[in-house]
Amino acid sequence: MTSLLKNIYSPQDLQNLSLKQLEELAAEIRQRIIETVSVTGGHLAPNLGVVELTLALHRVFNSAVDRIIWDVGHQSYVHKLLTGRQNRFASLRQYGGISGFPKPAESIHDAFATGHSSTSVSAALGMALARDLNGATYDVVAVIGDGSLTGGMAFEAMNHAGHLKTNVIVVLNDNEMSIAPNVGALSGYLSRLRTDPKYSKSKDEIAELLQKLPHGNKLLKVVDRLKDSLKYLVVPGMLFEELGFTYLGPVDGHDIKAVMTLLQQAKSVNGPVLVHVLTRKGKGYWPAEENPDRFHGVGPFDVATGRVKKAGGAPSYTEVFGQTLVKLARQDSKIIGITAAMPSGTGLQDFAREFPRRYFDVGIAEQHAVTMAAGLATAGYRPVAAIYSTFLQRAYDQVLHDVCLQNLPVTFALDRGGLVGDDGPTHHGVFDIAYLRHIPNMVIMSPKDENELQHMLKTAVTHNGPVAVRYPRGQGLGVPLDQEMHCLPIGRAEVLRDGSDLLLLAVGNMVAEAMAAAEELSRQGITAAVINARYVKPLDEELILAYAGKTKNVITIEEHVLMGGFGSAVVELLQQAGLPDVQVKRIGLPDEFVEHGKQSLLRQQYGLTAEGIVEAALAWGKDVKKVRKLKAIRAKG
Amino acid sequence: MTSLLKNIYSPQDLQNLSLKQLEELAAEIRQRIIETVSVTGGHLAPNLGVVELTLALHRVFNSAVDRIIWDVGHQSYVHKLLTGRQNRFASLRQYGGISGFPKPAESIHDAFATGHSSTSVSAALGMALARDLNGATYDVVAVIGDGSLTGGMAFEAMNHAGHLKTNVIVVLNDNEMSIAPNVGALSGYLSRLRTDPKYSKSKDEIAELLQKLPHGNKLLKVVDRLKDSLKYLVVPGMLFEELGFTYLGPVDGHDIKAVMTLLQQAKSVNGPVLVHVLTRKGKGYWPAEENPDRFHGVGPFDVATGRVKKAGGAPSYTEVFGQTLVKLARQDSKIIGITAAMPSGTGLQDFAREFPRRYFDVGIAEQHAVTMAAGLATAGYRPVAAIYSTFLQRAYDQVLHDVCLQNLPVTFALDRGGLVGDDGPTHHGVFDIAYLRHIPNMVIMSPKDENELQHMLKTAVTHNGPVAVRYPRGQGLGVPLDQEMHCLPIGRAEVLRDGSDLLLLAVGNMVAEAMAAAEELSRQGITAAVINARYVKPLDEELILAYAGKTKNVITIEEHVLMGGFGSAVVELLQQAGLPDVQVKRIGLPDEFVEHGKQSLLRQQYGLTAEGIVEAALAWGKDVKKVRKLKAIRAKG
Repeated sequence: MTSLLKNIYSPQDLQNLSLKQLEELAAEIRQRIIETVSVTGGHLAPNLGVVELTLALHRVFNSAVDRIIWDVGHQSYVHKLLTGRQNRFASLRQYGGISGFPKPAESIHDAFATGHSSTSVSAALGMALARDLNGATYDVVAVIGDGSLTGGMAFEAMNHAGHLKTNVIVVLNDNEMSIAPNVGALSGYLSRLRTDPKYSKSKDEIAELLQKLPHGNKLLKVVDRLKDSLKYLVVPGMLFEELGFTYLGPVDGHDIKAVMTLLQQAKSVNGPVLVHVLTRKGKGYWPAEENPDRFHGVGPFDVATGRVKKAGGAPSYTEVFGQTLVKLARQDSKIIGITAAMPSGTGLQDFAREFPRRYFDVGIAEQHAVTMAAGLATAGYRPVAAIYSTFLQRAYDQVLHDVCLQNLPVTFALDRGGLVGDDGPTHHGVFDIAYLRHIPNMVIMSPKDENELQHMLKTAVTHNGPVAVRYPRGQGLGVPLDQEMHCLPIGRAEVLRDGSDLLLLAVGNMVAEAMAAAEELSRQGITAAVINARYVKPLDEELILAYAGKTKNVITIEEHVLMGGFGSAVVELLQQAGLPDVQVKRIGLPDEFVEHGKQSLLRQQYGLTAEGIVEAALAWGKDVKKVRKLKAIRAKG
Repeated sequence: MTSLLKNIYSPQDLQNLSLKQLEELAAEIRQRIIETVSVTGGHLAPNLGVVELTLALHRVFNSAVDRIIWDVGHQSYVHKLLTGRQNRFASLRQYGGISGFPKPAESIHDAFATGHSSTSVSAALGMALARDLNGATYDVVAVIGDGSLTGGMAFEAMNHAGHLKTNVIVVLNDNEMSIAPNVGALSGYLSRLRTDPKYSKSKDEIAELLQKLPHGNKLLKVVDRLKDSLKYLVVPGMLFEELGFTYLGPVDGHDIKAVMTLLQQAKSVNGPVLVHVLTRKGKGYWPAEENPDRFHGVGPFDVATGRVKKAGGAPSYTEVFGQTLVKLARQDSKIIGITAAMPSGTGLQDFAREFPRRYFDVGIAEQHAVTMAAGLATAGYRPVAAIYSTFLQRAYDQVLHDVCLQNLPVTFALDRGGLVGDDGPTHHGVFDIAYLRHIPNMVIMSPKDENELQHMLKTAVTHNGPVAVRYPRGQGLGVPLDQEMHCLPIGRAEVLRDGSDLLLLAVGNMVAEAMAAAEELSRQGITAAVINARYVKPLDEELILAYAGKTKNVITIEEHVLMGGFGSAVVELLQQAGLPDVQVKRIGLPDEFVEHGKQSLLRQQYGLTAEGIVEAALAWGKDVKKVRKLKAIRAKG
């Protein structure tokens, strides 16, 4: 069997293929993606759903000139295979390899970097306006899922695009899902559109029809009188039409020819167009079709059986969070679980099953999630908003203005705090301490292991104000889990090891690394105390100052950017206390975006390991000695 | 003439008034608001527009039990007058007086603190869900303007509410404006609704009508065939109905009886309801009706003429920004001006007039504004997003994920950085350094005066990456404005005054205070160097370290929270450099929300004045001496 795919060096090579060949190519692409992702892990189901759509897009548009923006971007694998990256495709999401998301630095065919949801229409509109100002004529296409359409900024952009009447094409990739099945009234609206049989009439045909009716016709008058009644009938695309978009579709997204025809039509329409394409997540691979949620983002799996290769060992922080919340909710009927379209990703699925009335999936709508939680909290409830660190960025203002300003007891379960690994710079949760720490009333904690996470959650839902609990992606340390949870006093750290030469002051998952580093340092004759900070805010000022005074040398360690992070808070404290002769070194991430790669690799690269800490401590020790010598000389002189 | 208002101690007192009396009361309220705001300044036009609506709301609902959430909240003066605060009304927006926004701490009638736009539906939905879980039956009402409806999170909330089918009432206060006339396709849609004469038919009437048609009627078939054609006719409320809301209205918002009737009807509907109320901004006071934009938020004015009492003197930073951008845009055709519904507030009105094609008002949609700017920047344009510091909080994720991750040349003109004064805690721009500083690729500058602002803008639009220029609310210093603009080298500070005892390292508007403080200190025998930091990021490390080493005593000064702020950046730098024996004090705002009050008063209270700096420096000097003595003893011992 000849491989068509291997001869596709650029999208131009698609132009000579027959429809039949395109269909064969689609099958080859599916095969290639399944094989690759079964090894690398990645976003399988979304990509299997857009194979034909992507082929059609590259047949109708020229992505070297036209701009195609992939909303969220995890569905760009097919696009990458077609745009000169098939030889590097095995390196997908691997350190130094190609990214799992569109990346302009990787290819001119990637028009805009994406990762977070609902940005594509705004970016597309910006590009379309630039084109108009330049007097150019290329097309700008945003490809957005029905899930992403629930994000408010997509609405903001469509509202503006409809107003400007600029030429911009929005391809709605409607698979009835975000990661889990979609929620929201819009979702219901789209499903009514899907099931309406009269979708094929175009605007022109209708205009023609209306023209043909004789003026003053009695029928028209009747129709006029019935107008109000008709609003309860299903009218395709009306909602989008009212927003100034021409609505085309729906079309079967796995019918390449039909999609191409509709896209061609969209090209010729003046003003904003919405092309409604119906796809199936996981299409062509039965385990993914049957479990699109599980195969949305997936680790390595067995192709034949679809069985995901379980890592085994310790439970993940996410799992422990989910189980703990269920336990807490059994004791406290005021606890509410909230997710923004990620019930299983955040570990809330058990909570949802056991407490369906106290569980809310708001759709991809972090802003709304947070302010709705604030509303619940004003009425005596204890909402727990489980949102990945990187996605809570979307609700920074709501955390500040709606929750913290009113000092409301909302718990933010910040999963994926720190380096997330393969998803890379759009998803690393390495800014949360910096964007939360300066907000008055906020309490920030981070557990040293999955057992402490339990106690922190108990503490959080008991505290009378906002709390963020930050924990990393991946497995816990495998420590035993206490059956009874207790509250950890707010603002109290924990001394794990005493020492007099050096203080290793670590937060979250860096505590275990600090402990191992202290072991190694002690073998080298340096006695290092280790403190588990537990709280980033408020800091345990008393304890930290006491140990800083005692050891004179403080190293802070965090999986977070150094600027404005945990170490920065410690330095602020030490400066304020004006302690004589204490030197500080901060270990953390530099002021740059961190690329994708395995968590372990990235941690090694940035010195966020026991070895890295030892190395840094020894090197720094030499500098510090020099400084101290200089000081002593000056003090004497 | 008897005053009705003076006998209104709580909304209960409205219940016995006749319609005629309510109308008289409305006139009294208008009078009272005009008189008060003419002295205190405040949001005049929005409040004049909702007098009757507020009266109707308090007649139909019991705000001690039912929850009324005022979106944005600047239209809550009438509500405050009716809920026991008329005796304190003269203290509106004054230091220690009542707030210009709803504030639960002020009254049980204020259900939720607001200030930023588009939060009300989310908060209302949270309260409604809490009510349902509690088995209670009170009503929850969100009052939202048509402008606020363009904010994406309002859409997120409506989409969710429509899905849940919870009882929640959204009152759409449609005055065809945000602050300036509204933009957006939705605005066009609303205006079609307004002009449709057949709005009065209720859902029930229509259902009845449909029932009456005989089954199998030929007419129905005809109607069915014409369905698609009809989508281009105006169908009232369809868009909201599709989102799961029952649409009621529109109603004349100045007809108390009609509004009451519709609100009563809304109470009895099951599920989410949208009540469309048409109001006129500035209603009843001709200068405000004619210039609702100018009288949206207004300083003291003359009631008889409507003439605003001009402060006179130096131009405001906003004015200088606007004029400078026009000058720059004349030289560089790639410059684009973007506002989120605040053309005059941000000073873009002249730019809009001179460069209409390069000017975009996106509506109240900061998220979209920023990512659209990113899209423009990918195509070689130089967008300048003029957004108040407090409102850019709404787009934190877009700044990070869409602009900085791709290192795109977008300029953020951060007006109202620092204490804004009368608007209080929801509007102070005192977090921006902390929420921007840790983002890789970001450059942050802040001018010492309005002349430097010009050069900074030139620098910003010339720099090949993201830049935030932060400047304060209010007048400049009155310094001469250079005719030619030049670029200020990135990351270079400016020594304004030499000295050897102390370094005053100030940023933005604190530079002038630091200079005055240095004068006073020199009279007391202390020679203080003064550095204008210019850049918060990157810091001028070389210069700062040199002066820190020379003076040993560094005081940083910023109008910003201390946590994660400018001083924190300086402390990070000094810690990293490990300079021997340098002591630092940071002057700025503590870890709390700052109340409303005149800027000058607040600055005094928090020591952000020349006197405050002198006082702090002298007190700290004593501490430092103690520390140094201790150190010297230790070094010797």
